[in-house]
Amino acid sequence: MTAPYVHGHGAREAERLRDQADTLATLIHDGTRYPVGHTVLEAGCGTGAQTVSLARHSPGSWITSIDRSAVSLAQARARVEQAGFANVTFREADLLALPFAPASFDHVFVCFVLEHLPDPAAALAALARVLRPGGSLTVVEGDHGTVCMHPHSDAAHRAVGCLVELQRRAGGDALVGRRLHPLLSAAGFADVDVTARTVHAVGGHAGLAESFTRKTFTAMVDGVRDTAIAEGLSTLTDFAAGVRDLDRTADAGGVFVYTFFKGTAVKR
Amino acid sequence: MTAPYVHGHGAREAERLRDQADTLATLIHDGTRYPVGHTVLEAGCGTGAQTVSLARHSPGSWITSIDRSAVSLAQARARVEQAGFANVTFREADLLALPFAPASFDHVFVCFVLEHLPDPAAALAALARVLRPGGSLTVVEGDHGTVCMHPHSDAAHRAVGCLVELQRRAGGDALVGRRLHPLLSAAGFADVDVTARTVHAVGGHAGLAESFTRKTFTAMVDGVRDTAIAEGLSTLTDFAAGVRDLDRTADAGGVFVYTFFKGTAVKR
Repeated sequence: MTAPYVHGHGAREAERLRDQADTLATLIHDGTRYPVGHTVLEAGCGTGAQTVSLARHSPGSWITSIDRSAVSLAQARARVEQAGFANVTFREADLLALPFAPASFDHVFVCFVLEHLPDPAAALAALARVLRPGGSLTVVEGDHGTVCMHPHSDAAHRAVGCLVELQRRAGGDALVGRRLHPLLSAAGFADVDVTARTVHAVGGHAGLAESFTRKTFTAMVDGVRDTAIAEGLSTLTDFAAGVRDLDRTADAGGVFVYTFFKGTAVKR
Repeated sequence: MTAPYVHGHGAREAERLRDQADTLATLIHDGTRYPVGHTVLEAGCGTGAQTVSLARHSPGSWITSIDRSAVSLAQARARVEQAGFANVTFREADLLALPFAPASFDHVFVCFVLEHLPDPAAALAALARVLRPGGSLTVVEGDHGTVCMHPHSDAAHRAVGCLVELQRRAGGDALVGRRLHPLLSAAGFADVDVTARTVHAVGGHAGLAESFTRKTFTAMVDGVRDTAIAEGLSTLTDFAAGVRDLDRTADAGGVFVYTFFKGTAVKR
């Protein structure tokens, strides 16, 4: 787990993740409510983008949020404190070397984490270990291969392709969403259920076009511009054209479509 | 409207459309229920795949289903009669030359029709004419650009690309789904609302993998094989590899994802 986190840790990235979380909270957290008194492990909380939603939706549960980055954890802690939630404990830990006894948690929640891991199956096995029998696992991932836009732009798809390739070179898989069901099934979980949750962002309207198309997805692609060019995956001209075309789908007459996958499963 | 219907009119195609309708009925018709006594125009009913669902869900409404193909209409009529519904009238007519007075209908329903038309905006204008002010329009379309599969296959995407290109050459647009919101807005409708409805077909399970991935989508792609090769878009070997890979996503461990778009709008 020494590969660099593809999105970086800068302030702009933190803002992007915050915008993303606010907009997608409903899409991601719909159906995720934990009972009073239950323990929840959030593995890979990053800067706490999802932690606040978890704490808000399950105020009576006890949440332990881990991340391997102390910098991210500090941001997550500040964010959760600012939001006024006291049911979250933060701990610096690696998902593949969890400092918890077997069957320690009633539930595990993982969001936008598997995409960064060289071996998601090993991660699921590690999470299964700390989950009690009958406990639930929830996993949310995107899939950049589901991007669909109007007006269509080959340059935009090439720019997205750069992000996919960089994530691959960093040991991850930006197309992991479609693999969620096979991964959960192969990991030995019961009652595997995966739903596709599609964002349909209509350009020219406040809301998703601004917060998701522009501030989340286009900003994320634009964020790897220098690296993509440095690694010879694109040129400044072509990458800029792609980002411009992506951005244009947030204007009136444009449409941007992206599908997230949310899986739930039960530890046997 | 003299361009050939890309999917053909054979018996196999009729069976494919029937399988498709049975499986997708919930996805497509969810939210579409017409009040008792209201009149509904179904424009482009084809072989009646959706007509039966319309009649079932709105038994008190009066449905007029038109198509420009007498052969398809005869099949649609037989199908609706066999299902025991008596609230549907069939009429041979061209969507662009509707034999109805202005404001004749309370509602209009169109499914998988715009994708075949060279000028979907003209079609929407024609439909708006026969809709009363305050009446509703419902449009459902697919978008082959949303195809996403595991295992990923370039050959499969190339085979799907052949279908898209053939539909383009026939004057249609197999990627029209993403354009639904802009098209409805530009046509002057009020309260335009478009939702993405994503099929997530898990391989190895009865249900969608069999009925949608295999019998609907893969069969549809396979149905243009000879034409694609004759028009020089593919080779027998490459096309067969693509169809085989598509089909494989319906086996255990595979996943096939496809997004439909359903739009509703109100005549001003």
